[in-house]
Amino acid sequence: MKVILEGSCTSPLGFQAAALAAGIKKAGEDMALIYSEKKAVSAGVFTTNKVAAAPVHLDKKHLADSAAQAVIVNSGNANACNGQRGMEDASLMARLTAEGLNISEDDVLVCSTGVIGLELPMDKVTAGIKQITGELSSDKGLAAAKAIMTTDTFAKHLAVEFELGGKKATIGGIAKGSGMIQPNMATMLAFLTTDAAVDSAVLHSCLVKAVNKSFNLVTVDGDTSTNDTLLIMANGMAGNAAVAFGSPEEKIFQEALDTICIALAKMMAKDGEGATKLVEVQVKGALTEADAKKTAMAIANSNLVKTAIFGEDANWGRVIAAVGYSGAEVDPEKIEIVFASEAGRETMALNGQNIAFSEENASRILAEKELIIMVDLHLGQAEVTAWTCDFSYDYVKINGSYRS
Amino acid sequence: MKVILEGSCTSPLGFQAAALAAGIKKAGEDMALIYSEKKAVSAGVFTTNKVAAAPVHLDKKHLADSAAQAVIVNSGNANACNGQRGMEDASLMARLTAEGLNISEDDVLVCSTGVIGLELPMDKVTAGIKQITGELSSDKGLAAAKAIMTTDTFAKHLAVEFELGGKKATIGGIAKGSGMIQPNMATMLAFLTTDAAVDSAVLHSCLVKAVNKSFNLVTVDGDTSTNDTLLIMANGMAGNAAVAFGSPEEKIFQEALDTICIALAKMMAKDGEGATKLVEVQVKGALTEADAKKTAMAIANSNLVKTAIFGEDANWGRVIAAVGYSGAEVDPEKIEIVFASEAGRETMALNGQNIAFSEENASRILAEKELIIMVDLHLGQAEVTAWTCDFSYDYVKINGSYRS
Repeated sequence: MKVILEGSCTSPLGFQAAALAAGIKKAGEDMALIYSEKKAVSAGVFTTNKVAAAPVHLDKKHLADSAAQAVIVNSGNANACNGQRGMEDASLMARLTAEGLNISEDDVLVCSTGVIGLELPMDKVTAGIKQITGELSSDKGLAAAKAIMTTDTFAKHLAVEFELGGKKATIGGIAKGSGMIQPNMATMLAFLTTDAAVDSAVLHSCLVKAVNKSFNLVTVDGDTSTNDTLLIMANGMAGNAAVAFGSPEEKIFQEALDTICIALAKMMAKDGEGATKLVEVQVKGALTEADAKKTAMAIANSNLVKTAIFGEDANWGRVIAAVGYSGAEVDPEKIEIVFASEAGRETMALNGQNIAFSEENASRILAEKELIIMVDLHLGQAEVTAWTCDFSYDYVKINGSYRS
Repeated sequence: MKVILEGSCTSPLGFQAAALAAGIKKAGEDMALIYSEKKAVSAGVFTTNKVAAAPVHLDKKHLADSAAQAVIVNSGNANACNGQRGMEDASLMARLTAEGLNISEDDVLVCSTGVIGLELPMDKVTAGIKQITGELSSDKGLAAAKAIMTTDTFAKHLAVEFELGGKKATIGGIAKGSGMIQPNMATMLAFLTTDAAVDSAVLHSCLVKAVNKSFNLVTVDGDTSTNDTLLIMANGMAGNAAVAFGSPEEKIFQEALDTICIALAKMMAKDGEGATKLVEVQVKGALTEADAKKTAMAIANSNLVKTAIFGEDANWGRVIAAVGYSGAEVDPEKIEIVFASEAGRETMALNGQNIAFSEENASRILAEKELIIMVDLHLGQAEVTAWTCDFSYDYVKINGSYRS
């Protein structure tokens, strides 16, 4: 498998994109379009928030036939909590896009991200869609990645190439935001494209599995957005025989999908609002995978752990406290905690107790930009890796006045 | 019922206290003692964290007979994650206190708060206990309230007077920290005393009920400490007939206990680390009390809500998003959200939708130091009130370098 760092949603065969400034945000690009030349087998994973935005409801309906051909996205306004008007606006976005591209309205997926509870400025949105549908190009994947950003500080994109049934296949993707099940209110959006031919049930199953190893294990602040959406379109233009359940190709496709999802998820954690450090939380020795996940997410979500990491303070007591309240089965007297980074590794606690660790070495480790917190529960074989970021003054600054 | 603002744990008959600087903290008082002249019927509620500190284990053992006569407390060191040595140190603290007071070791309760994973400096602790047991006085309740502080910015104390079976009875208390089930790592400790005579089973039952209406509904940052402890000693010196289950006196005692617990809990929220505002979250119209609590705590724990409150930003979208992911049964199209304070009230959302609210009025409301967020789910009759604080730069500052 080949990772293409400059790749994006337009890397696979037959995909185009466009981006422009429609005037929804005060400044900058705020509209993106992704288009597949051929109608694509498609699947989506959406927010679990009961207060879901209008486009989430629309996309679930449009994905009922597991097919789509375009995704229209606006940033700057979430189109959430706008009642019937919000649903009508999301539908109009799909209809206008379909007209501009001469495809079926039902094959257009819609995503919005931004402030909740404000109606979309439909005059600007309408004009934007009329223009953007005429500007598609196979080299605008990165421009699309930029246009979907809100508080993001860098565009998130990647592609992976691999062989599938004797053909070269590619999965590309762009993403924004900072989590999936527990994301920052900036909303997590990710749009994946592939030229692989994949059976629709397989595509959905592979997507859910990949999400559970990636976006569902990323957290910035424990809040779940009303708009989180992950979409994938598979247009089959690679020419392979459609990937079927239980085939060797399913395993290859899953591995490629996992790779791109984990890479994009890590970019989100790294770019969490105000983040100065990327933190990987590796939990092993749990009795069950559910326990490993609870433990990892409790640590990853702990404000106290995250502020200590920001302060480069080797406060492992906050890590063990998070383990203790995670709800996972633990034996306090077996817990082992290690801090690691490129600068080295240091065991902080063994058998649930303080050991005489080197403060100097710990400081060197914590000074790095990418850290690993390893926790071994020493109870079983299950393990999970999650990602988070530190918690800085800038998180408060960014979120203290988000609407203004 | 009469509320005595300057009251404390030494307000009820027969209680004394003392405080001193034992040298456990770098500076300031760090040891407190509360003593009842008569052995008291006692009860406690402790952290649910599976990684519980040594004194928590000891106190549960010492409370097996529902009796106690003294509480020795140190701040600056949590005596958590210190293994067998931690248990021995906690036991030694009880034994030394018992010797100094000439009471049974089994009747001494021990509490510690501070950094996790550091062994107690037992030379200083021993010298401190030898001194403090000779300095008891009935006017040192406030000094004790100050000595148990860690990152607290003001001492928390109160007493309530009420009539019980024809006698004047008093409940007094001191507290520190910022929560109970989801407290700040600074640890929540609260010590209540009363001269009321109360049956031991009634005392425990009343304490649990009061906690569920107060300390369990306070949150600062969602982290649960290894050391949280709430203790009550009832020495019977008011001369009333012991309060029995189902008696009118039980109701009176419960009401007084609720009052002091809610007041102390609100002081904790107000003094949350870095807090600039006290926020009361009132949820009503829930199908069940559990749903009301889930909703209130999701809002109270939301970093995004708390940073918006700090920024005085009327971002009700973050409130409704928290309602949506709380896990409670909700109908997104029925949710009503109101912001209120002494400056007025403003409905932000009705039927789950944005309504044209006055930004000017909202700004005036949010500029106050004490705010109310009211959420009506419009589904049922259950309601719960919770308390939290805003989330400021100083939270990050305080917690970025807590150990140093």
